[in-house]
Parts: sequence; C-alpha cells; structure tokens
Amino acid sequence: MNVADVRARLLLGPGPSPVDERILRAMAAPTVGHLDPQFLTLMDEVAEGLRTVFGTGNRTTFPLSATGSAGMEAALANVLEPGDTAIVGVNGVFGGRLAEMARRMGAEVVTLEAEWGRVVDPEAVIEAHRAHPGARLVALVHAETSTGVWQPLDEVGAYLRDTETLLVADTVTSLGGVPVEVDRVGIDVAYAGTQKCLGVPPGLAPLTFSARAMERIERRGRPCQSWYEDVSLISGYLGAERRYHHTAPINMVYALHEGLRIVAEEGLQARFARHLEVGRRLQNELVERGFTLFAQQGHRLPQLTSVLLPEGRDEAPLRRRLLEEFDIEVGGGLGPGKGKLWRIGLMGAGATHESVDRLLEAVDRVLA
Amino acid sequence: MNVADVRARLLLGPGPSPVDERILRAMAAPTVGHLDPQFLTLMDEVAEGLRTVFGTGNRTTFPLSATGSAGMEAALANVLEPGDTAIVGVNGVFGGRLAEMARRMGAEVVTLEAEWGRVVDPEAVIEAHRAHPGARLVALVHAETSTGVWQPLDEVGAYLRDTETLLVADTVTSLGGVPVEVDRVGIDVAYAGTQKCLGVPPGLAPLTFSARAMERIERRGRPCQSWYEDVSLISGYLGAERRYHHTAPINMVYALHEGLRIVAEEGLQARFARHLEVGRRLQNELVERGFTLFAQQGHRLPQLTSVLLPEGRDEAPLRRRLLEEFDIEVGGGLGPGKGKLWRIGLMGAGATHESVDRLLEAVDRVLA
Repeated sequence: MNVADVRARLLLGPGPSPVDERILRAMAAPTVGHLDPQFLTLMDEVAEGLRTVFGTGNRTTFPLSATGSAGMEAALANVLEPGDTAIVGVNGVFGGRLAEMARRMGAEVVTLEAEWGRVVDPEAVIEAHRAHPGARLVALVHAETSTGVWQPLDEVGAYLRDTETLLVADTVTSLGGVPVEVDRVGIDVAYAGTQKCLGVPPGLAPLTFSARAMERIERRGRPCQSWYEDVSLISGYLGAERRYHHTAPINMVYALHEGLRIVAEEGLQARFARHLEVGRRLQNELVERGFTLFAQQGHRLPQLTSVLLPEGRDEAPLRRRLLEEFDIEVGGGLGPGKGKLWRIGLMGAGATHESVDRLLEAVDRVLA
Repeated sequence: MNVADVRARLLLGPGPSPVDERILRAMAAPTVGHLDPQFLTLMDEVAEGLRTVFGTGNRTTFPLSATGSAGMEAALANVLEPGDTAIVGVNGVFGGRLAEMARRMGAEVVTLEAEWGRVVDPEAVIEAHRAHPGARLVALVHAETSTGVWQPLDEVGAYLRDTETLLVADTVTSLGGVPVEVDRVGIDVAYAGTQKCLGVPPGLAPLTFSARAMERIERRGRPCQSWYEDVSLISGYLGAERRYHHTAPINMVYALHEGLRIVAEEGLQARFARHLEVGRRLQNELVERGFTLFAQQGHRLPQLTSVLLPEGRDEAPLRRRLLEEFDIEVGGGLGPGKGKLWRIGLMGAGATHESVDRLLEAVDRVLA
C-alpha cells in the first residue's frame, strides 16, 4: 500500500481526532536538529502553550517524546518508589491502567472502584486517604475515555493540598476541550495526549509537574526506574544548559506547536464553549433516536459520548458500515462496554455542528 | 515563531539526518485511526520492511512508539529482571547509557570498559561471559554514535548462540547504513532509531526480538517494569487479535512506511555501498586537511565520522559558523570528546557526494 492512497476519514472516535490542514503542513516542515536554536525556540514556545492549556505556571511542563500512555507511566514513575502507597480511582480502562502501572513499579495500590459510567466519589477518595494518610499519591482520571465520565477534581484537590500526598490527574481526553486548571485545582502531575482535544496527531504526551512534585522527585531515594521518562534528566535538556538527553521527535513538535497556535487563536474559553455546545447537541439528538447515554447524568463529557445502541441493534456491523460506507470512524466499547457501546468523540477540529450533521445523517441511514 | 519560517539545514550531524521530501509528504497524509484497516495494513508492511533492514525473520519486529533511547530501554526492560546479570560493553555514551538503564532495572551490571574510540574486544566479552555464565544478556553498541566506532559482533554472536545468554545490539546508527544481519549474527534483541540511516524524522524506535528472546519473556517471573514498553502487550496489538494497547503515532508510521519504501527501491546492498563510498571519501578528505580521525583504524563507521580538529582550532565557534553561515549542522563531541571533536554524519539521504562537497567547501572557508 502507498501512504498517498490513504482514504481520509471523519474521525469521530475516542481519538485520534481530525487534524487541521495547517498542522499537517507544519509537520511536513524541514526537519532540523534537536539542538538547533530554531528548534529550542519552538520547544520553549510549546512549553508556554502547554502551560496555558494546562492552566499552570509550572516550570516543568513539556511534551514527552512518546504517546499519552507513556505520559501516564512517566507521571507515576517519577514520583513513586517501591513500597509507596498509591490510591487510584478505577471506573474504566484508564483507571485500571494507572493501577496496573503503579503495581509494576512496586507500589502498594489501593484501588477505589466505581461502576463503569459513574464517577469516583470524592468523599470516598478523601476517606481512603484518611485510612492511608502516608500515601504518596492519589490518581484520578479527569476524562475517562472508555466511558465518557467527567470526574470532579476540585474537592480532592483542595483536600490534598494540605497533605503530603500528590494529586495525579489523567487529562488525556480533557486537555484543550474542557477546563483543566492545574494550579487552581491543585493538581501536582497531569499528563495528556496530543490526539484528542488538541487536534494534533498522536506521538507526544504533554506533561506538567508542580513545584512540590519536583521537590518530591529531588528527594527520591533511588532514581526513577525509567531513564527515558526521568523528568530530572529531561529537565537538563529543557533548561538553560540544554544537556543532551535524547533526540526529540522534531516534526511532531512542529505539529504540536501549530496546534497550540490554533488553540491560542481561538481562545480557550471559546474552545471549551464550542466543545460543550456541539457535544450536548449530539447527546440530545442521540437520545431522540433511541440511544441511551451511558455516563452518569451531570458528569458527561461533551467531547466524548458513550452510548448504548437502540434496543436490539448490534453495534459492530453498524459501526463498520459507518466506516466503510460513510468514511466516519466511531469507537466501540471497551471492557464491560464491549459489543454494547459506541464511543463518539467530538474533539478538537472535529467538534463542529458539521461533524454532528454528517454523523447523524449516516446514523439515520444505517439504522433505517 | 512560526514553523513555516524554519530555515532548512543540511543535517550532517549525528542525527537527525536529512529527510526526503517524499517522506515529509507522506507524513502529512490525513491521520486515520489506529484500528482503521488501512492503518493496520501499513503497520504490517512497516514490520515487513523492518525485517528486511534488520536481516531477520523475527515475528516480533515493530516500531516502538517513542524514540531510539526508549528502544534501548524496551530492549533491556523486556528481558531483564531484578537480580539478573547484564554484561555491557562501554566505549562511549551509548554503552554507558545501556549500563545505567540496566542498573535502574535492578540488574547486576558487569561493564567491559574500552577506551573511547576503540572497540570492545570480543575476546574480553567472551571471557567476561565465562566469568558470569549465568548472565541474562550481553549488550554491545554496534555503531557508537558518540565516537564513530563500528563494533564487530560476529564472534560474540556465534559464541552466545550456544549459551543461555541473549545478545542485545544497539543498531541505532547502523540500521539501513551498514549490514545489521540480526539472524546471521545471532542477535536476540536489536533496536534502532528512524532518524539516522533510515532518513526518517525521529519519533519511532524499530525493535526486533528473536524467538528465544520471546521465550525468555514468556517465562518471566514478574511483568516488565514498563507497561508501555512491554512487548508481550504490544504483541497483542500487532497480532491477529489487534488488541488495543495504546494509540500509535499514526503520521510517524506513515513516514517510516515511506522511508522503508525508499530503502527497498534503492536496495540494501546499493545503500550500504553508497554509505561506504561517501563516508570513506569524507574521511580521506578530512585527513588531507589536517583533521585526525578519532575512531580506531579498521573499525570506522562510514556513516558517522568523529574527527579531532587541526591543531590549535577551537571547535565550537567553527561549528557555529557552519550552522549560521552555511546552514550546515555537524555535531560536537560528547564526554571526553566534548570541545575537541566533530561528529559528522552522512546518513540516509545525506550520504551523497554533494553533501561532502558542500561540507568541505564550507570547512575550507571557515578554516581559511
């Protein structure tokens, strides 16, 4: 097969989301070296753009040279040491992945399970912390991509601020689509992916570490298990000394740079409003067509909608028809949602009324 | 700064290397989903192309979704468990990095030091193995990017074949430029980067695991410390079941796909011959100009030349002039070579007589 023959799709799954032509063009700019002054300027600007979308003044804010799941791993690996306690909210795939990663790092993992589709009760998190006051971290998934649940973080953030425990937040699907507000909420470590509401191809993981997270990292008894993800080493490249660590994925950084410019041009508030408006419209229209929204009312992400199909409909063949006949990608369910759910993303450049129109027209045709 | 304003450079440093326009164009093809049948076809073809350049029939051959240094980490993390012995040849930065990573994984590391610029003596490796016959692995850097040394692997490969010890080879700077021949040599795990002799932007790490490496991985007592780099999980996505692991960097895979097509069109033998001819010419021309080749005679990589500047010349200001006045990037030295060496890459699309001409003309000007 030839890449030039790739058929474009309208990407309305759980990610990647549609990529603006400007970003694809930027990605095709000539590759330069990772120590070229031009590239260092672009990296500094990317860090600044990420601070804006994360809502933080954190010095240690950068794109990790890997995808969002590596961002998750880096977030945990930098602050955890073997034997540390980690309290992890699990109400979907990504909470489960956090717990699994922390276990592999030798942490004692306390999971707070909630039914898929429901939030993890903030009161339960606080209670768990009272039972494990020495916990190194609490990890919660802000936007659970497997269910479409929007986890509230404010209460837990305010509570943990006065403790020694760090708050780690998975913002893979929230960053750039709904407010993240790292500093206001009191998140110590947040990570994301580029291929969701930032509308950039997958390949980088935006990360931010608070000053107190960095202090914790400086006080580690043994180095981070991962050399590649070790933020104390990566900082040497990001900082004034520009110490060589690894070769950054130059053209992916170009893409993120352009993506963040587009975010800045639109303005964060306008971007959030767009995601909210378009997502709520889709959810209403689907309910009218006999779909059932899966996520708990009041905690539904606008940018990622999980829905049960109308009674008696088999999801996989219909989803395949959307792709094959209409070039529209939506996602299937994961875990207990497998074979039952669709996951529909309206993220980044995909969060438009035109996307909703095209999707609904196709849905009406395949359901007819 | 705007990415569109990035000034192109002739990339003759230790990587990234110049990227063919066809690859940049492929990278800008529309992003599709990681489970889109089109993308799965491209991934299968990339794996096949990597098997060709690695010289292997290994089923488990794929591009890791991160850069070459993560490939190094994945190579070690999948086969090592805490307490395992790892014998590591150290004659430059990358051997040192292998040792450091293995230590972080809890391995007992036996380093075999050699002077920077010289090979690690194969006899010494075999002796070290006789002293540590239970070693889990021997790791050697095939092409030491910090010195330009071309490490012989045949003797060690043939010896280890009859033992329980795996041979891990760093082929970051060799893959696609000089023969790697994983199967013939008896390499069990090899990793590379895309931004050297493959001529693709940085962002992926080609990896291959032999059947006996995979058997070792299946017999592990505890899971790989890294979930992201765990080849037993990644295999579930690459295999028939297409189990979701993480979102691959779609457009980077497009770039690698196109890069491997270019390699196939040229033919591996022709590509090796080109790197050899052009590299040897540069080395001769530099010696004529009073430069001193740093790597041991008989073990000089053609694609990466490290040279000491003519007596009394300060490397950094001259290197800066090459970049600023001629838009040519060459690399400085690392470790003991810092402030003394240039590292000049003629890799991938950069390995041409035209590159040599442009560089020598500029060198003559700045030395005049």
